[in-house]
Amino acid sequence: MDEHNQTDDLGPDPVNDLSKFSPTLRAVNDSMLEGLGQLADYFGYNKAMGKMYGALLLSPEPMSLDDLMAHLDVSKASVSMNMRMLENMGMVREAWVRGDRRKYYEAESDLWTILTNVLGSRELRDVNQALNVLESNISDLRESAAAMSADEQKLALFYIERIDRMKDFFRFAKLVLTSILERDKKINITDVKRIDIE
Amino acid sequence: MDEHNQTDDLGPDPVNDLSKFSPTLRAVNDSMLEGLGQLADYFGYNKAMGKMYGALLLSPEPMSLDDLMAHLDVSKASVSMNMRMLENMGMVREAWVRGDRRKYYEAESDLWTILTNVLGSRELRDVNQALNVLESNISDLRESAAAMSADEQKLALFYIERIDRMKDFFRFAKLVLTSILERDKKINITDVKRIDIE
Repeated sequence: MDEHNQTDDLGPDPVNDLSKFSPTLRAVNDSMLEGLGQLADYFGYNKAMGKMYGALLLSPEPMSLDDLMAHLDVSKASVSMNMRMLENMGMVREAWVRGDRRKYYEAESDLWTILTNVLGSRELRDVNQALNVLESNISDLRESAAAMSADEQKLALFYIERIDRMKDFFRFAKLVLTSILERDKKINITDVKRIDIE
Repeated sequence: MDEHNQTDDLGPDPVNDLSKFSPTLRAVNDSMLEGLGQLADYFGYNKAMGKMYGALLLSPEPMSLDDLMAHLDVSKASVSMNMRMLENMGMVREAWVRGDRRKYYEAESDLWTILTNVLGSRELRDVNQALNVLESNISDLRESAAAMSADEQKLALFYIERIDRMKDFFRFAKLVLTSILERDKKINITDVKRIDIE
């Protein structure tokens, strides 16, 4: 028996004993891994990457690369490549297992944390910068309009109208990003019932 | 003079006479084209594609491929390739210009319409389907728990907790998508001041 299962108090060994599970547990496990594989594929990543994340997410114990290979029937090369990508995206992390020198991994189970990692604050900064550019263009046009010819004033009004509509759009992007990034500080997402746009 | 400028009533010819504009109009035009070029680059598209969209957005008159080539100093091949991508994304459309057999284009100026085109309702359907899968997995686990061993019940509870957290996440994605897709029907986006997550 693997040493890392010695402290297992969460039922049957989820890593190797999947066949001993009740049919429902097996069906749910299959469904989740299949779904996460499709999701990874949807976003242009590797299907195996989604399945690996799913296997770790539904495992109460950390899993080694060997465990994942056996569980998912994928090659060593694919498992190690996908694990590096999952680590880079903050979706999994190394876990220490007593008495075992192999590397073990566990899933980051909070998808909000993952999204915040991936988005970072870079996107919010970029959106703010775009908003500043749009606003300063509008105010430049407004301030200079008096010194323009009548024809140029017409065009300036046209520019202002187009830029203003773009501003609304970036303002919405900013609101969505802000509510994601600040969520941990302010709100309990399980209580979200509605997004009001007002 | 090009025939398509005969009906121009919005000031100086925006296509060919940029040099005659006031310095502010020229500076704003530069700033917007540069910014949209960067934005296109940011999303993995071609910088010239963003600039072409910007040139059309800030032109009160439709522009031909030749106009865009002259205005932006890009090759014919690049202009036609990027125009095809812009058309496919619903960001530009063909415009008819009286007495001219060349193809002319104008920008879709409503970024919400563009986003709705790009997102379509496919993403919302996919998110709803994911939510259904997660919900049915949770209810399967709840219903079968009584027939499970104590160990399996522990694991079922663990599965339910993990899947439930994922459900919250997809529910938020659904709210954001719904508010974007239904925006036209319900709300005036210029009045948006806040997104409440409750």
